[in-house]
Amino acid sequence: MGGFSFELIRTDGAARLGRIVTGHGAVDTPAFMPVATQGSVKSLAPSDLLAAGAQIVLANTYHLMLRPGHELVRELGGLHRFMGWDGPILTDSGGFQVFSLAKLRRIGAEGVEFRSHVDGSLRTLTPESCVAIQHALGVDVLHPLDECLAHPATAADTERSLALTLNWLTRAVAAHRTGGSPGALFGIVQGGMYEGLRRRAVEAMGALDLPGHSIGGLAVGEPKPVMYDLTELVAGLLPADRPRYLMGVGKPPDLVESVARGVDLFDCVLPTRNARNGQAFTPDGPLNIGNARFARDAGPLDPGCPCAACRQFSRAYLRHLFGARELLAYRLLTLHNVTFFQGLMRDMRRAVADGGFGPFRSRFLARYGVESVGGSADTDSPADSEA
Amino acid sequence: MGGFSFELIRTDGAARLGRIVTGHGAVDTPAFMPVATQGSVKSLAPSDLLAAGAQIVLANTYHLMLRPGHELVRELGGLHRFMGWDGPILTDSGGFQVFSLAKLRRIGAEGVEFRSHVDGSLRTLTPESCVAIQHALGVDVLHPLDECLAHPATAADTERSLALTLNWLTRAVAAHRTGGSPGALFGIVQGGMYEGLRRRAVEAMGALDLPGHSIGGLAVGEPKPVMYDLTELVAGLLPADRPRYLMGVGKPPDLVESVARGVDLFDCVLPTRNARNGQAFTPDGPLNIGNARFARDAGPLDPGCPCAACRQFSRAYLRHLFGARELLAYRLLTLHNVTFFQGLMRDMRRAVADGGFGPFRSRFLARYGVESVGGSADTDSPADSEA
Repeated sequence: MGGFSFELIRTDGAARLGRIVTGHGAVDTPAFMPVATQGSVKSLAPSDLLAAGAQIVLANTYHLMLRPGHELVRELGGLHRFMGWDGPILTDSGGFQVFSLAKLRRIGAEGVEFRSHVDGSLRTLTPESCVAIQHALGVDVLHPLDECLAHPATAADTERSLALTLNWLTRAVAAHRTGGSPGALFGIVQGGMYEGLRRRAVEAMGALDLPGHSIGGLAVGEPKPVMYDLTELVAGLLPADRPRYLMGVGKPPDLVESVARGVDLFDCVLPTRNARNGQAFTPDGPLNIGNARFARDAGPLDPGCPCAACRQFSRAYLRHLFGARELLAYRLLTLHNVTFFQGLMRDMRRAVADGGFGPFRSRFLARYGVESVGGSADTDSPADSEA
Repeated sequence: MGGFSFELIRTDGAARLGRIVTGHGAVDTPAFMPVATQGSVKSLAPSDLLAAGAQIVLANTYHLMLRPGHELVRELGGLHRFMGWDGPILTDSGGFQVFSLAKLRRIGAEGVEFRSHVDGSLRTLTPESCVAIQHALGVDVLHPLDECLAHPATAADTERSLALTLNWLTRAVAAHRTGGSPGALFGIVQGGMYEGLRRRAVEAMGALDLPGHSIGGLAVGEPKPVMYDLTELVAGLLPADRPRYLMGVGKPPDLVESVARGVDLFDCVLPTRNARNGQAFTPDGPLNIGNARFARDAGPLDPGCPCAACRQFSRAYLRHLFGARELLAYRLLTLHNVTFFQGLMRDMRRAVADGGFGPFRSRFLARYGVESVGGSADTDSPADSEA
């Protein structure tokens, strides 16, 4: 496995076309990472992900450290071999889940102590152990332990939290340098809804010369314009020659608006989770396959989609499967949604390559419809099993 | 679509190698039909069934008449197109489900009246409507409405029931002849645990010159030797030039023992349902993937199996998926089990073709282990959603 690199190929306004290269292959950016929470993109096999056009997946450090355990994964040859995915894998830090899923017991300068949501056992995560866990998993992109504040938070609390997160980042960088892993450790820009703190976070990270930067703490319930403005601000402050990852975003219009503001990488449970609730994404906006109007609809979910769900089955059949709670419904809708998200990213890459991102953005948003401007934070509820 | 034919190619003792040809293609016998209760073999796509080697599937008349409704399926081009399966489809009569899943309201000479388990609506099934429903579905092999007695039943009750079933059969044959369907209507041999009634059933059906015969009312809780003896008796009475289908059977050793007694066709929810409970079939008997001894097992479920679950993933990963309730676990275990059952049938066909069925049977049973002689009826509980 080689190292990590990023090439910025072309820009169109703030939108960027790029290419990340990792020891497990390349990722064309802007890119969307399907979420393999527990080492599986729910209902899909790796071959489905390839067919859908995915080049990289995200896995959750928190979930995998608890089950099956990172040492077990290491013994079995690392996460790539364990889950049968040869492409790049990015892991989050586990911080978000510790602060949302687990029963938090103590947080201190050293790290966090919490009870596992799986078996109630007492666990700790420190900046050092968090990096060591990701080394055991053998992933291509790692994240440092960070504190994830509940929204809304006061400026004083956010400032205190940012200081802790930056301190942890320094320790994570040191732990990563001595760990001998070829993976790339990204820094997470926190700072809540406070522009000054966001600026301070970016400045503090500059000296660390990190291979990539992640924007955390957005899509947590703030108004959409705030999210877009802070994304634009932070992306504009970050070095142009490193990839920028907006964590946990989002709906298709959010992806387009964020690419327009200079973001390169995304992840969200939306395409997979919503599939299991019967929602299919299309260029005309989402549709709910359980709707009675699809009962006799012989057409495909999305006539323009190349996925097997659209090529082989009718809306009527998918509606029947969903109504009958057939497992195949979840699988086919997930395959479709992941394919749709990958297709959207590919379309954006082409638009930037052709210097036509602005018109693409207008066309996409007009066709997708006004539904698009609703909040996306509701779909990221930490209570869900996929968080 | 052409008609229906059966060619008996070779026998080896009572075991038979044959070939059924339908308007939707051929089925090499002995054959096992995966169960697509509601128009989907749970978690699998038609392409998976082909990869597993399946040539025919079974669907449930009762389930499909209630949801999505046979008229809807007819409108959408029939069940083959609806579910995306171009191969032969066999439907049962719905009788078994009416007598086990539904709330039975009335049974009379005319037919049965029951409440749908889906929405509580009042429904009727007559021999004529049962055939008409299967015509609407457009399947290749149909079954007449029959009465399914609870086990055990007295000789008097069984005799009365058989008379009703035979009367309904005559009406079903008449309805089928005037229905203009190219499908083949099989007769169901009932008669409970009573040899004399089984003989009477076969005799009564002789005059109807049916294209195939199904053995019903077994694997309902009777001792295994009784099931084998009655299977042998009935198979021996049935005409050699028509296929014989043993309904709802069964475990791998049951399939081998029944082929040894002259059965050509089987269906059972065992490979699919048990997969969802974590049970994988192997030549060495079933294993439960949730078992702790597989936690660090880097080997495949079954080293000799060609399925994607065995080629691409370890027992450790499958155990992790199953423990984490990941949908992919159910899909991969189902794919494996269906592949195993198809492989077993193929091996039996080869053994008959080579004149070596006896040694094959001995070898298979010895390796599969004594677990094999346990009852299979417990796995066919009508309370299960796949019944």
